[in-house]
Amino acid sequence: VNLFWALDRMKAVAEANREQALPRIKELLLEEALHVIEENKQECRNIGRNGAELIKDGDTILTHCNAGGLATADYGTALALIFTAQEEGKRIKVYADETRPLLQGARLTTWELLQAGIDTTLICDNMAAQVMKEGRVNLVLVGADRIAANGDTANKIGTYGLAVLAEAHNIPFYVAAPTSTFDLSLDDGSQIPIEEREAEEITCGFGKRIAPEGVKVYCPAFDVTPARLITAIVTERGVSRPPYGDSLKK
Amino acid sequence: VNLFWALDRMKAVAEANREQALPRIKELLLEEALHVIEENKQECRNIGRNGAELIKDGDTILTHCNAGGLATADYGTALALIFTAQEEGKRIKVYADETRPLLQGARLTTWELLQAGIDTTLICDNMAAQVMKEGRVNLVLVGADRIAANGDTANKIGTYGLAVLAEAHNIPFYVAAPTSTFDLSLDDGSQIPIEEREAEEITCGFGKRIAPEGVKVYCPAFDVTPARLITAIVTERGVSRPPYGDSLKK
Repeated sequence: VNLFWALDRMKAVAEANREQALPRIKELLLEEALHVIEENKQECRNIGRNGAELIKDGDTILTHCNAGGLATADYGTALALIFTAQEEGKRIKVYADETRPLLQGARLTTWELLQAGIDTTLICDNMAAQVMKEGRVNLVLVGADRIAANGDTANKIGTYGLAVLAEAHNIPFYVAAPTSTFDLSLDDGSQIPIEEREAEEITCGFGKRIAPEGVKVYCPAFDVTPARLITAIVTERGVSRPPYGDSLKK
Repeated sequence: VNLFWALDRMKAVAEANREQALPRIKELLLEEALHVIEENKQECRNIGRNGAELIKDGDTILTHCNAGGLATADYGTALALIFTAQEEGKRIKVYADETRPLLQGARLTTWELLQAGIDTTLICDNMAAQVMKEGRVNLVLVGADRIAANGDTANKIGTYGLAVLAEAHNIPFYVAAPTSTFDLSLDDGSQIPIEEREAEEITCGFGKRIAPEGVKVYCPAFDVTPARLITAIVTERGVSRPPYGDSLKK
């Protein structure tokens, strides 16, 4: 949702200056875009600082998909907590789900974490339950694509399953996102449509066909994690805990 | 465990006939191997018949990895229930997890089901929770690699997570396996060692590297589903329900 939030900001600048000459409008748009980047950097740093209290020295964190600098500006959202914890001298480790079908976890998250010198272990998505059962991780930390007014959170497919598994293993489940991800026009997650992606993302995702012709495919891009499974939501403003209705509006 | 069970049978034949000439021993070993195949075919058919009562007209089944004819003789174990239900004229559909890292679900299970004309939909492993939440499946059905005396079941990595998710969504979770899979020398699943596989199965599983060099990898081949999450175990002898201790020994 924050992509549209940013486009709305750009549109507002263009409309407020429609009497200006085109080169001037372009200049103003560039300025606004640079402001968005600068604000986002600040937001990411604040998310990291606000959430760092949730990560203790010696923790091992499980994350899903990519919620780092490649998806935002600078420090990212979920990864901002990790980078900040490391800066604070906490010894931490991370397990990263590969995140099928597009492998953002394997391709992006592991790369960002290794660049920062963080001890990173890649697993397949279906290994998360076993990793939890073996006591290898003590918290789950993910980003968000859209958060409804009650705290229900849309994020990359697989997130909801992780939240169910985290609850079953008594592991806290945290979401980190800027408040621009909130969509307070939605009462709850049932109003969030789930985008369905092309079959080929699964069947030909590696440049090689991995399933027989003619098989049906179901490929939801996102899922919605109900607020009751989310231990806390970290934003640039602070840490919200359930019930989220009011705490998210602060 | 039934691979070793079969090797033990072959060894017993060789030892009982060690005074025979080599060509005769070879003949006897071939006979025994053909007996094993024939018995396994009969077992698979019986597993299918015994378990068919668990599948109703209109059901949609979620399965994981491959528990069909490519992994056994003839009808397979979990898939035997599906093939039998279809023969009985029940209208059924199947969702198949792709089953990372080696994609047995995408490559083998979908192929077997399509050959039998069964309505088959492929998903990534991390989509199973969403598929359950949307009410798309009403039972989970898997095979087994080893079953301890109390019913704890080792099977392909990802099975345990599915069982936790099935419980959270009030969906029955069934295991189908011949009794040769039972290892009654083990009191429970904690005594089953979990094989760890090479990092390359995940990082290079598609003939293309999908993760940066230097990343650690954790790749357990199996997990153990505790008996309390298993609604019933179907064998060639019948359907066992918890508590499994005695019902499995019958």
